[in-house]
Amino acid sequence: LNPVVTLLTDFGLRDEYVGVMKGVILRICPAAQIVDLTHQVAPFQIGQAAVILRSSFRYFTAGTVHLVVVDPGVGTDRALLAAEADGHRFVAPDNGVLSLVLPAGAVRRVVRLDPSRFCRSVCSATFHGRDIMAPAAAHLARGLPLAELGSPMEPNPMPPAGWSPLRWDGKGRLAGSILWIDHFGNLVTNIGLEDMARLQPTGEERLVFTVGSHRIAGLSRTFAQVDAGRVVALIGSRGLLEVAVNRGDARRLLGVAQGDAVHVIKEEKT
Amino acid sequence: LNPVVTLLTDFGLRDEYVGVMKGVILRICPAAQIVDLTHQVAPFQIGQAAVILRSSFRYFTAGTVHLVVVDPGVGTDRALLAAEADGHRFVAPDNGVLSLVLPAGAVRRVVRLDPSRFCRSVCSATFHGRDIMAPAAAHLARGLPLAELGSPMEPNPMPPAGWSPLRWDGKGRLAGSILWIDHFGNLVTNIGLEDMARLQPTGEERLVFTVGSHRIAGLSRTFAQVDAGRVVALIGSRGLLEVAVNRGDARRLLGVAQGDAVHVIKEEKT
Amino acid sequence: LNPVVTLLTDFGLRDEYVGVMKGVILRICPAAQIVDLTHQVAPFQIGQAAVILRSSFRYFTAGTVHLVVVDPGVGTDRALLAAEADGHRFVAPDNGVLSLVLPAGAVRRVVRLDPSRFCRSVCSATFHGRDIMAPAAAHLARGLPLAELGSPMEPNPMPPAGWSPLRWDGKGRLAGSILWIDHFGNLVTNIGLEDMARLQPTGEERLVFTVGSHRIAGLSRTFAQVDAGRVVALIGSRGLLEVAVNRGDARRLLGVAQGDAVHVIKEEKT
Repeated sequence: LNPVVTLLTDFGLRDEYVGVMKGVILRICPAAQIVDLTHQVAPFQIGQAAVILRSSFRYFTAGTVHLVVVDPGVGTDRALLAAEADGHRFVAPDNGVLSLVLPAGAVRRVVRLDPSRFCRSVCSATFHGRDIMAPAAAHLARGLPLAELGSPMEPNPMPPAGWSPLRWDGKGRLAGSILWIDHFGNLVTNIGLEDMARLQPTGEERLVFTVGSHRIAGLSRTFAQVDAGRVVALIGSRGLLEVAVNRGDARRLLGVAQGDAVHVIKEEKT
Repeated sequence: LNPVVTLLTDFGLRDEYVGVMKGVILRICPAAQIVDLTHQVAPFQIGQAAVILRSSFRYFTAGTVHLVVVDPGVGTDRALLAAEADGHRFVAPDNGVLSLVLPAGAVRRVVRLDPSRFCRSVCSATFHGRDIMAPAAAHLARGLPLAELGSPMEPNPMPPAGWSPLRWDGKGRLAGSILWIDHFGNLVTNIGLEDMARLQPTGEERLVFTVGSHRIAGLSRTFAQVDAGRVVALIGSRGLLEVAVNRGDARRLLGVAQGDAVHVIKEEKT
Repeated sequence: LNPVVTLLTDFGLRDEYVGVMKGVILRICPAAQIVDLTHQVAPFQIGQAAVILRSSFRYFTAGTVHLVVVDPGVGTDRALLAAEADGHRFVAPDNGVLSLVLPAGAVRRVVRLDPSRFCRSVCSATFHGRDIMAPAAAHLARGLPLAELGSPMEPNPMPPAGWSPLRWDGKGRLAGSILWIDHFGNLVTNIGLEDMARLQPTGEERLVFTVGSHRIAGLSRTFAQVDAGRVVALIGSRGLLEVAVNRGDARRLLGVAQGDAVHVIKEEKT
């Protein structure tokens, strides 16, 4: 009835780029409900966008079209994709940004966008988000079948930059990094609950986390489990390990930055 | 027909938190028109959010649902509320953020949210905005009666932190403070028009305002009543005293910060 | 069916100003689809807003109402306008912000807003965006004819501040400036493709661009035509000359600022 289209970009909000894409979408699909996921992905940070998309898309109604414009590689030979999986639709560049929602082996359909099939006007050389990807998303929202947007293809299986699979560092430690730092200064890592499960702590053991020279013993359920101003490790709302400060800013308190290493070990409870 | 839901949070726009709450709302109430009041409330600043809500809600159509997620105290025993007053609906934590729109003595109905009554899925331990409050707001927007969201309760009557009632400092001065500083650098105070009325200046007297070492004689109606670059005191669009610079930035010119004292006295016109 | 209203302001997103204007619009026109162009125009920068509007409005469906609130001059005798041109409607102050979409000689209709004709409530002295211009835009979106909002007038023909027509600097150089710098650090100039055409380079000549002490030879089609980290000059998505760095930030690399001079000459290919 009111098809939903989400937007996820690194365009920021200073310019008219996002607003113009919405104009293009509404011209093709006037009933669309457009929702901004965020436009503050750090420029070209595909890994951050991939995690945000994975953490978000399931909260939307089935059939939602998710449009991701991060590092489309305009002027290179990078393909632009449309895909269906898990009852959701996606439009994005073939740069790995969909790799967490279209895992290898999943049931999915993917086409390489062919603008000649659905764009009436000439494309600019610089703004494919506006001229190719927004029209593709709008046509999907309006009901055009995926197959009419382009020809089937296999997406690039590369993981997004900044995202790394489970890794052991040879010292018995699970090694990850700070993927990004949220508005509150919470440190979002690339370590998932399922990764930590592989450490298989016994009832006599607990997990210990290190960020820089800081050490946090034990996994908490909520921020408020520690006193205000104290550091806490917990599984955040994205299903990923976060290091935070209750009612404070972990980035400032710990003096860390995006990309810094985070380690997990198990040790005996004392 | 198209129920309106407003959002007021301290989530910022860097992360997907706001977008995901919108996804949850639209899944329950697809016809909702969602409007952002702001997501740039300073983290945990309940007083700022309370004033923004009071200044905003009457401009929306009757029946609008206003969802406020600022300092919900996840993991503490703080209640989450839904309320009706003045023909509007509100969903918020019981931390004083509604105290200016639900004043003691007003006709109002308040319930303590009971997620088991309206949430189908398991709640996360960290994101009640997404898992409890957004569903509650969406069900209200869709027509569920308030009474079905929880059991009646009396909200905490505490005033929001940072907001203080009328105060005399013993020197014949009305004393307030800078509640926050807006995008243009205008200083928004917690002193209302009705507070200043209690000074009861006669026709031979005028009001004088001090901020730091700066002194402004007389209340203006508009910014343009003084020359560009000059300081002006006026009642802003929220009904509160503001100190501003015509076509300039009062924060920079006066070198002041949120929380700084503001005083009002009356003196004879010269 | 779902009339579109765009918003373009210098209000920022920290305060509730934009949200409240949306509340006013939806109360008058509940079916409106409201789209933010941007609210991050630099305070009072009419030229930047004029270019953003010119670059944006055609991407929206015919009949869209574009509401621009930048430097309305509240408290001065500046008029507020509503206008129709090119199948689009506009509401804005008479400060030149519409001069690029309502050029002299174009077929257009313009009225001076008379709030007594369409506002029910008393206007504040400080927030005409909320109290006069948002209601005007909403009534237009709802179908009220332009002529009922006020009396015909001729808009101020002045060009927007910061925008200058084609200029030769006496040394055979086309002279412009950096109008603003976008989210990626790209330098957006006030030099259009049609301006450069007047240089009439022959097949043996090419265009050369200077910004500060930096010199770029030749106009590229896309960012990716140069290596990552290298400077490129191209016609951006607005039809204006931009100086950018492929996958980088031109503002930082070149150390330039808004307002800095940009020159174009032609020279023989080597």
